[in-house]
Amino acid sequence: MAQPLYQKVIDNIVAKIASGELLPGSMLPSEMQIAADTGVSQGTARKSLMMLEQHGIVRREQGRGTFVTARTPDSALFNFFRLRQRDGEMIRPELVSQKVTVRRATAAERRGLDGEPKSVVEIRRVRSLKGKPSVLETTVVSATRFAGLGQRTALPNTLYVHYQQNYGCIVLRAEEAISAMIADEDTATALNVEVGEPLLCVERVAFDIMDLRVERRRSLCRTDSFVYQVSLT
Amino acid sequence: MAQPLYQKVIDNIVAKIASGELLPGSMLPSEMQIAADTGVSQGTARKSLMMLEQHGIVRREQGRGTFVTARTPDSALFNFFRLRQRDGEMIRPELVSQKVTVRRATAAERRGLDGEPKSVVEIRRVRSLKGKPSVLETTVVSATRFAGLGQRTALPNTLYVHYQQNYGCIVLRAEEAISAMIADEDTATALNVEVGEPLLCVERVAFDIMDLRVERRRSLCRTDSFVYQVSLT
Repeated sequence: MAQPLYQKVIDNIVAKIASGELLPGSMLPSEMQIAADTGVSQGTARKSLMMLEQHGIVRREQGRGTFVTARTPDSALFNFFRLRQRDGEMIRPELVSQKVTVRRATAAERRGLDGEPKSVVEIRRVRSLKGKPSVLETTVVSATRFAGLGQRTALPNTLYVHYQQNYGCIVLRAEEAISAMIADEDTATALNVEVGEPLLCVERVAFDIMDLRVERRRSLCRTDSFVYQVSLT
Repeated sequence: MAQPLYQKVIDNIVAKIASGELLPGSMLPSEMQIAADTGVSQGTARKSLMMLEQHGIVRREQGRGTFVTARTPDSALFNFFRLRQRDGEMIRPELVSQKVTVRRATAAERRGLDGEPKSVVEIRRVRSLKGKPSVLETTVVSATRFAGLGQRTALPNTLYVHYQQNYGCIVLRAEEAISAMIADEDTATALNVEVGEPLLCVERVAFDIMDLRVERRRSLCRTDSFVYQVSLT
């Protein structure tokens, strides 16, 4: 089946963002220009931009133009960090410790990340909420796609802003699978709880703008003071 | 500040759905008719219908008209039931046992449900996934708002369809707060696990079309074979 014309325009723009030709925050060509460049009608160009906007890839500003969405530390943090106080209040997680390792990928990691990386960067972080160590987070990305990340001594609190600014990688969506587990010795020490305490285990797969799996992350969370919040519609 | 005109139209339609004057599945008046009835322009009527559609309250069918959304058992089930197999496959929960009680509301229940009900209907159900008892669910609603619900001997698997068909109550959205806990004796017996097994505790508040809190539900879930799945964007 032939691809619809607006999809061709979308793919074209997404590819330019993915390659870094269009940077976050930069202005896209006008509808008329896009139509001329891609050989489609202006209506089709408009439809493409509307769909990109619905997906949060671009932002249209009345009378100014259309811009590539720039992820801010706060939008990155609170869209993807779902732990809240019981009353719904947002909490800013703080970094307690961080250990970055570059190592061979396991078979599961090679299958679970696009590009089948031979080696990965593993970032193990303890985050604290309201002064209490609450989340033990292990993040794994391809060492090829994110070359040099393993050599960084300091990483910002929100990795997704770093991915976007330094690797042109926009994390657009993520899938999380949540289960309950019991703290083992390693986790109990990191989170300062007893072995056997119940914890949430949140396993995330993050997808970039081309819908490739760019990151896997496992977060073990204390939920005696905080909850993982979800809105269903 | 004056309410925008489209909001007046929206409130008017929502009130008619809430009162049962407009039933699920029924056709709304035309844009022109709505405009004439409410004293707004046809453009405003159109905007109101678009917003109602975005909220899933109505469905517009090209060339046919606009209809009040009817919740089907499947849409009700899978929008609000987030347990999945690890591979993402949906699972249809089956009812193992059910106990319905009418009792005085606790102070927390009076505060936690709109209308401050003096008495509530409590529905305690064990659901099984793939033949294994997996969810112990305790649902509480106002005994006034849902008069007669406590006398029903058999309730359908999906309560939200029952609420809509018998009480004109459309559950539009829900907030869930997830934490990890340890199975106590009562739960362990119901779910056929050892005392001390880790479980997910999912606390839900469900909102109707007027954004009133109509139901509270606590689900204790085994997650040794299943996970609670969330999509983040």
